[in-house]
Amino acid sequence: MIIDKLIEKIKETNNPTVVGLDPRTSYIPEHIKQRARDMYGATTKAVAEAFYMFNKEIIDEVADLIPAVKPQIAMYEQYGPDGLEAYIRTLEYAKEAGLIVIGDIKRSDIASTAEAYADGHIGRVDAFGQEKEVFRQDFITLNPYLGSDSITPYLKNCGKYDKGLFILVKTSNPNSGEIQDLISEGDTIYEKVGDLVSKWGEDSIGRYGFSNVGAVVGATYRAQGEALRRRMPHTFFLVPGYGAQGGTGEDVAVCFNKEGLGAIVNSSRGIIAAWQNSKYKNNYSEMEFAKASRQAVIDMRNELINCL
Amino acid sequence: MIIDKLIEKIKETNNPTVVGLDPRTSYIPEHIKQRARDMYGATTKAVAEAFYMFNKEIIDEVADLIPAVKPQIAMYEQYGPDGLEAYIRTLEYAKEAGLIVIGDIKRSDIASTAEAYADGHIGRVDAFGQEKEVFRQDFITLNPYLGSDSITPYLKNCGKYDKGLFILVKTSNPNSGEIQDLISEGDTIYEKVGDLVSKWGEDSIGRYGFSNVGAVVGATYRAQGEALRRRMPHTFFLVPGYGAQGGTGEDVAVCFNKEGLGAIVNSSRGIIAAWQNSKYKNNYSEMEFAKASRQAVIDMRNELINCL
Repeated sequence: MIIDKLIEKIKETNNPTVVGLDPRTSYIPEHIKQRARDMYGATTKAVAEAFYMFNKEIIDEVADLIPAVKPQIAMYEQYGPDGLEAYIRTLEYAKEAGLIVIGDIKRSDIASTAEAYADGHIGRVDAFGQEKEVFRQDFITLNPYLGSDSITPYLKNCGKYDKGLFILVKTSNPNSGEIQDLISEGDTIYEKVGDLVSKWGEDSIGRYGFSNVGAVVGATYRAQGEALRRRMPHTFFLVPGYGAQGGTGEDVAVCFNKEGLGAIVNSSRGIIAAWQNSKYKNNYSEMEFAKASRQAVIDMRNELINCL
Repeated sequence: MIIDKLIEKIKETNNPTVVGLDPRTSYIPEHIKQRARDMYGATTKAVAEAFYMFNKEIIDEVADLIPAVKPQIAMYEQYGPDGLEAYIRTLEYAKEAGLIVIGDIKRSDIASTAEAYADGHIGRVDAFGQEKEVFRQDFITLNPYLGSDSITPYLKNCGKYDKGLFILVKTSNPNSGEIQDLISEGDTIYEKVGDLVSKWGEDSIGRYGFSNVGAVVGATYRAQGEALRRRMPHTFFLVPGYGAQGGTGEDVAVCFNKEGLGAIVNSSRGIIAAWQNSKYKNNYSEMEFAKASRQAVIDMRNELINCL
């Protein structure tokens, strides 16, 4: 089961870190941008090519240290088909490097539409008789606002193709409480959603006691994370909000169980743009941006391991 | 303002119908599929080409009768970059035909990511110094679960580029109540979300009293639609769930105000696959599929006008 593979990769690397491959042109060293511009000019294809070259070098440097990467599809999608091509090439490259790939897509729609997303992202589509795997992802993120029937098509594909989900429960952003923290029947909405996520995952619990259906729980709300960890003992957490968004090692530690399992912590900018950070700037040149990312991964791993 | 343009197009055509351009290979006549296969074989590119040819013919037949189209991006995205290319070509073609275009994307993410979606979908991206409009949409749909700061980047682009939003309030699917109907402080969650949507739209109310920030309100829950119409007097509704999902003319009528304004009703399968429907089958051959769609648009318009 995919959740077992993720846990085994975490144990193997002794590192519950997922690197968010969320490129922006401002993070990319000039020599890569120049190469891309030389190839394709001032086009979305050039930006997409720069993203791919950037990701590739980072993956090469960090693949042995981490269990997984999580590209955020928005960063690519904003550049249209060229961007999506770079997203897919990034997924392929990460898979070839032995990494688990979490596609951060946060889709939501009614069942008949969810089927299309599920087939494209964690399944197969039919192209006039040829079965195609379009997006090579192991996990995807989803938004739960539409309820169970909007999730069922993904659960089907999880079973069929051994894929996993991380469903938004309590998000890391400042206004997440507006809807998620409302109280209903003595529980918050995010607790209600958490209960649904637990239920959706009941039938796919692996050998470490965790389900293929996980939850997104932000690092920026420590008390809530702690309570959710107790409430959802079989649900693996994907934890955004560490680093740039303000979450600390202590904040994320509450998302793990006493065996040190149960969560994977995302860092994006803090790792992929490490070469621009004053902490690494003096030791790594712009050309060595990926080596700065490697050091940032090591530092993050050490901080997490220290706090667990 | 874009909401005024939408309302004027509705008045001009006397038709509050939006055609959902949500193609599936099973809806597409054999001669189009054959042409696409002849061009590109059994590939995602062939499927995408078939989608575009299918949409184009339908747009040609119905553009004078309707104010707007609403392509569902999932149908295209599942086929990867080729699918997205067909999505963009469909947007372009519909705009050239004078139609308002509502991109049904239902995205949701934290602010820094929402900026990327907003720039790609209802703004401009920078490609190494060249400003590009990637997706040519007038409105997009969004999911509100993350709260205000996840919506702000879209509101900014709405102001800057005269674009509009339809934000999920009460969806049309069977399990929409699981989260949306929970009661908090005497209101349902969807009412709380409705109040937020009203607030997000306060600063962009046009000459007909409606805001550029609209709401998605399913036709399948009549009492809820009626109550929301009263609660959100300045919010335009995008109403899915009519026809194939079970919503009737009477169900959707409650979403309009007494001037017959305030909503646009979507039909997808009922129109684009009309040629397969027993109602139209005898009068239109497979080759005439788009003429069957035209008749289905006329029939839907007449039913809606009758009920208002």
